Amino acid sequence: MRFKFIAAAVGLAVANVAVADEGMWQPHQLPELESVLKAKGLSIDVESISKLTEFPMNAVISLGGCTASFVSPKGLVVTNHHCAYGSIQYNSTTENNILENGFLAKTTGEEVPASPGSRVYVTEQVTDVTAKVNKGTEQLTGKARFDAIEANEKALVSECEQDKSYRCNVYTFHGGLEYYLIKSLEIKDVRLAYAPAMGVGKYGGDIDNWMWPRHTGDFSFYRAYVGKDGKPAEYSEDNVPYQSDAFLKVSAKGVQEGDFVMVTGYPGSTNRYRISPEVDYVFNTAYPLARKYNSKYVSLIEENAPDGSEARIAYESTIAGYNNYIKNYGSMIESFNKGSMYSRKQQFERDLTAWINEDSKRKAKYGHVLADLTTLVAQSQEHNQRDRMLGYVHRSQMMSSARMLYRLAYEKQKPDAERESGYQERDMPRIKSRLESMSRRYDETVDKAILLYFIEQYAALPSDERVAEVDKALGLSNGFDKQKQQVLLDDMYAKSVLADESKRLWMTELDLAQLKQSSDPFIQYAHAIFAVTKDIEDAKKELAGKQQAARPALMEAIIAYNKALNKPVYADANSTLRVTYGTVGGYSPQDGLVATPFTSLEGLLAKNTGVEPFNSPEKQNQLIKQKLYGDYTGGMNTVPVNFLSNVDTTGGNSGSPTLNGNAELVGLLFDGVYESIIGDWDYDENLNRSIHVDSRYMLWVMDKVDNAQNLLKEMTIVK
Amino acid sequence: MRFKFIAAAVGLAVANVAVADEGMWQPHQLPELESVLKAKGLSIDVESISKLTEFPMNAVISLGGCTASFVSPKGLVVTNHHCAYGSIQYNSTTENNILENGFLAKTTGEEVPASPGSRVYVTEQVTDVTAKVNKGTEQLTGKARFDAIEANEKALVSECEQDKSYRCNVYTFHGGLEYYLIKSLEIKDVRLAYAPAMGVGKYGGDIDNWMWPRHTGDFSFYRAYVGKDGKPAEYSEDNVPYQSDAFLKVSAKGVQEGDFVMVTGYPGSTNRYRISPEVDYVFNTAYPLARKYNSKYVSLIEENAPDGSEARIAYESTIAGYNNYIKNYGSMIESFNKGSMYSRKQQFERDLTAWINEDSKRKAKYGHVLADLTTLVAQSQEHNQRDRMLGYVHRSQMMSSARMLYRLAYEKQKPDAERESGYQERDMPRIKSRLESMSRRYDETVDKAILLYFIEQYAALPSDERVAEVDKALGLSNGFDKQKQQVLLDDMYAKSVLADESKRLWMTELDLAQLKQSSDPFIQYAHAIFAVTKDIEDAKKELAGKQQAARPALMEAIIAYNKALNKPVYADANSTLRVTYGTVGGYSPQDGLVATPFTSLEGLLAKNTGVEPFNSPEKQNQLIKQKLYGDYTGGMNTVPVNFLSNVDTTGGNSGSPTLNGNAELVGLLFDGVYESIIGDWDYDENLNRSIHVDSRYMLWVMDKVDNAQNLLKEMTIVK
Repeated sequence: MRFKFIAAAVGLAVANVAVADEGMWQPHQLPELESVLKAKGLSIDVESISKLTEFPMNAVISLGGCTASFVSPKGLVVTNHHCAYGSIQYNSTTENNILENGFLAKTTGEEVPASPGSRVYVTEQVTDVTAKVNKGTEQLTGKARFDAIEANEKALVSECEQDKSYRCNVYTFHGGLEYYLIKSLEIKDVRLAYAPAMGVGKYGGDIDNWMWPRHTGDFSFYRAYVGKDGKPAEYSEDNVPYQSDAFLKVSAKGVQEGDFVMVTGYPGSTNRYRISPEVDYVFNTAYPLARKYNSKYVSLIEENAPDGSEARIAYESTIAGYNNYIKNYGSMIESFNKGSMYSRKQQFERDLTAWINEDSKRKAKYGHVLADLTTLVAQSQEHNQRDRMLGYVHRSQMMSSARMLYRLAYEKQKPDAERESGYQERDMPRIKSRLESMSRRYDETVDKAILLYFIEQYAALPSDERVAEVDKALGLSNGFDKQKQQVLLDDMYAKSVLADESKRLWMTELDLAQLKQSSDPFIQYAHAIFAVTKDIEDAKKELAGKQQAARPALMEAIIAYNKALNKPVYADANSTLRVTYGTVGGYSPQDGLVATPFTSLEGLLAKNTGVEPFNSPEKQNQLIKQKLYGDYTGGMNTVPVNFLSNVDTTGGNSGSPTLNGNAELVGLLFDGVYESIIGDWDYDENLNRSIHVDSRYMLWVMDKVDNAQNLLKEMTIVK
Repeated sequence: MRFKFIAAAVGLAVANVAVADEGMWQPHQLPELESVLKAKGLSIDVESISKLTEFPMNAVISLGGCTASFVSPKGLVVTNHHCAYGSIQYNSTTENNILENGFLAKTTGEEVPASPGSRVYVTEQVTDVTAKVNKGTEQLTGKARFDAIEANEKALVSECEQDKSYRCNVYTFHGGLEYYLIKSLEIKDVRLAYAPAMGVGKYGGDIDNWMWPRHTGDFSFYRAYVGKDGKPAEYSEDNVPYQSDAFLKVSAKGVQEGDFVMVTGYPGSTNRYRISPEVDYVFNTAYPLARKYNSKYVSLIEENAPDGSEARIAYESTIAGYNNYIKNYGSMIESFNKGSMYSRKQQFERDLTAWINEDSKRKAKYGHVLADLTTLVAQSQEHNQRDRMLGYVHRSQMMSSARMLYRLAYEKQKPDAERESGYQERDMPRIKSRLESMSRRYDETVDKAILLYFIEQYAALPSDERVAEVDKALGLSNGFDKQKQQVLLDDMYAKSVLADESKRLWMTELDLAQLKQSSDPFIQYAHAIFAVTKDIEDAKKELAGKQQAARPALMEAIIAYNKALNKPVYADANSTLRVTYGTVGGYSPQDGLVATPFTSLEGLLAKNTGVEPFNSPEKQNQLIKQKLYGDYTGGMNTVPVNFLSNVDTTGGNSGSPTLNGNAELVGLLFDGVYESIIGDWDYDENLNRSIHVDSRYMLWVMDKVDNAQNLLKEMTIVK
């Protein structure tokens, strides 16, 4: 079976066009794919999955950054353990370490609040607002166009959010060819119902992150609560479980190799339609440099925060985050160098151009778009190294806090609707939480060392790439002198109050005039460079406005070209609800190796060392040794733990329900394999694989390891 | 096919007994296995492969440490690139870097001498000398028995080597149950005929060492030369190519998955019949400590020989060697902890004991042997930590040179036949080359730092485990003081002449009285501790003599037990000619992954980075891109590069011809996979796999990449 699957996947890949099982489809596009879906194994009606308010789509929800789904009529939500991680950690104490040991509420009364800010979003309405967003922008160009579009979007959002039960956003599709207003019920009382032990939920940890074979029980359960009136409400003891319109049945039979699966969820962002000069720049310059500087960033932290020190503890999550990016960039650069994405992209552009030039009307309409965009892209890259180094300089916690505070005061001068996005009233909770969290993630020695290093890198730029105001504010006008710079920074840190959380929060209340009077050196710096960085930002908006005109034109051409070839086109991921479908199966990560599609309990046990992250709970180990599989084998000689499929997913899809042809939950999507990290740019049918936790393993753990019988009873299990 | 193969290999493994394709058989045992061999796919007559002087065994030769084979009637020899590495390096110069670029003699006249000491050994006679070795030892025990056996062996060797064309050795089988005298023609004029570029022959380097997937063209060609009289002779221009009695045909068709293969060669050493307390000690104490101290050894070198320094260059091969061991130990410890070797071993001992006790005569004869050996093993482990630390102290280059010189002078007092093995006249070339090579591998700072560290470890032993004479000689009688010790070592190194190669070689001429007068501090040390270390050595011989009596008794019991089960027993590897057979096929290195049995040219190219060790020659890359496979696909859609089989091999088998059922050469064995390193102790049919370079790749490189048409014409290629 495996080889048939892999062989079937071998073929000529055409960039940006749906072949094989590539594609993150908007639900309304699915009827176009009906014959394919039916042939692959979809049993339920295609029309129903194309509608947000019908089963199963109305059971699929967003947590903001992760996906989840309702699995009972009483608001029970299943998602990934790593998506609920913050809430598990939030409820964990030294005495009751539920992160380590797991948590199970035996009744709803025992359920505990998720971490502050946790939300469940149920998409209820998707409206095409392209005309409204573009209204009045037809004659505009550059920044004027950019600003007008933003104003239109804000007005739409503001109007939609008049109903306080909803969160609304305008999403851009095809680079601005289409805009959709998405209205989601915002459930604000979210509680933790059940999480397995870390030795299940995070088994393999960062070592196995993006790696196959995996044996991670990456699942957890929330419950959504609303007020007695059924409407979203802040946490209250009186709130009641939310009754969703639908919920997913959970399969105890699971899937077999070759079976049809589909994943519904909220993929974050992809770049499948970038043009070849962008690909060239990103893979040959931007990612290699990001890997280099991020690695330096990590080593600066490690050098200045000795192992085991308080400072190191404060930076552990920062280090983990950076290492994650480094691995990510590393994989993408490796895949790019091995693969043929760039040449395929160029070939596609040649084919597209030839097609455009075949017809004089087409040529008149689209003949210039690729060249236009190429010019704009080149312009946008002109000062990249300057912006990159300024970015790292301003990434210092003191710098970024000061600049955020100054910008906030600046924006607060304007009416809310006109403020820069990110600084509106609706953004205040996020800003405050950002200023608060700095306390747990800051050490002066580390912050200063990082800042000093990147000032040195900035100072090494050619003088015409440096910014006079920055040079002046950092005392670089006569060049960089490390010792002098160290003294200057020592003085800035000594005089600043920004290391004090209460002072940072207090400053959010100050107006611009007050901040301008501040003697805090970092606030003074933010003030000194504000005008010039605003100019830089505006210049970027000018270019963005031009791109907003050019990209839709290119996408229109691409769509027309594919239509001529009778191929539907999906939009790049943008955190909106999508459906992807495919087949359960393995792949060959390299010549001489085949990744088989399922892992087993026995493989889990073989990895167990007892030492985190390979510390499977002893009870689980014993159950495996005794082969107490229960009714969760689905015909296999074990309980399958994780499985592979070729569905097309990315970050944001974490926690997405994986459905079989009957729309029963057969797994939770939680990761891609290492070779598919480049999938954000290019779907390679030979290498793009997603990793799912198998519903059989989830149910087995609930039943045998954790005795979560109360939840199993509440759910509808398909046996 | 693959899964059938793996499934067939799954079953209950019984320790020490030939199941599946386990076993390194002495040729004379093969007729016992005829039905199995025939069923697996052997086409040629079993009788013929059981005789050393018949085809194909007479074409299989030893290089001392590696195996090789004749592949033409004119003495052309094929072996691994890594077996000929020293000779390639020896002929490589900055101007003509043949190590990097490869070497091809277009005529025999262009062939160059292999590195000094290179030999080709052709086994001509194997004689059972068990009675002669045991003669007169019946009443002896302990050291007396040990010495008597050694004396008998030396006499046999000396008599055999009267014919100067031969090298003779007595080999111990089954721990002393049998002894064989092996007489091999010693060809002394060996020349390099052809080696591919390092980017072929060592592609993947240490990174891919023991790893699958592999893409290494690990092959090279020697030619054996003899005097005009056909007898071995030292190098001379007048020598002529040796005409072997037979040579192997080379297959251009290769093998397919599931095909029968056999490997004939000289595996070095295995420990398949050790008893469970030995296994326990080795895997739970000895290997973990060896890994720990060897890692420390490497880090001491790295700390004291900065990257890029002369000193670091001198120690590069030492570091590589240690890292190789560390990887090796690591794999074995990992496999041991994951696997069931120990419990299977214990089960086997219980089964054996039960079988012995079933019968009163058997019980009388064998009832005590396991207990006897257990006691002796425990005794031999008593001072292991002392011996380990003294071993590391004496591993310092100055220490080991001094002790070797002193021991040589001591032994030279006796007639040659009575000298300790390793210090006889026949060993002098090896001793001198050892003293010479130190010059290229020594740095005072490094050597001193290592010595200081291990003296500190030795000094930390409990006082009753320390040796008074060593304490005194190293100034440790009043405890260890690092600073004082440093001063003492500084003084010793300053006063010693042993860093001088000519002085070291000159000292080999001195007699014991002269050495005793030497003012060299390291020679003085060697003198001061000689008596006590000799006592320790003699105590070990006492125990070894007892084990020499106990082990054969146990092996006799094991063989009888297996005979009762109708199973032949193979002896542990001991550098003598063996045959192992099996099947071409992959394996599952872990749950969720399958290693497929062949790698391809395309996989080779995918690994190529242009940077050593992944620097495939550009010509090869172009040929692959153009798919110019020639007639070397064997029906596959590529040229296979390396392949896997389950033959049972170990170090010493490197370069062994891999033969098909017609005894045609289809590959060269060159490595085991990572999971089979523990194979020296335990053959696991699920994990034990050997890696072969495919004859098709070898021929393709010769034909297409290196234009070695002259050699291809000389060989007999089966198409």
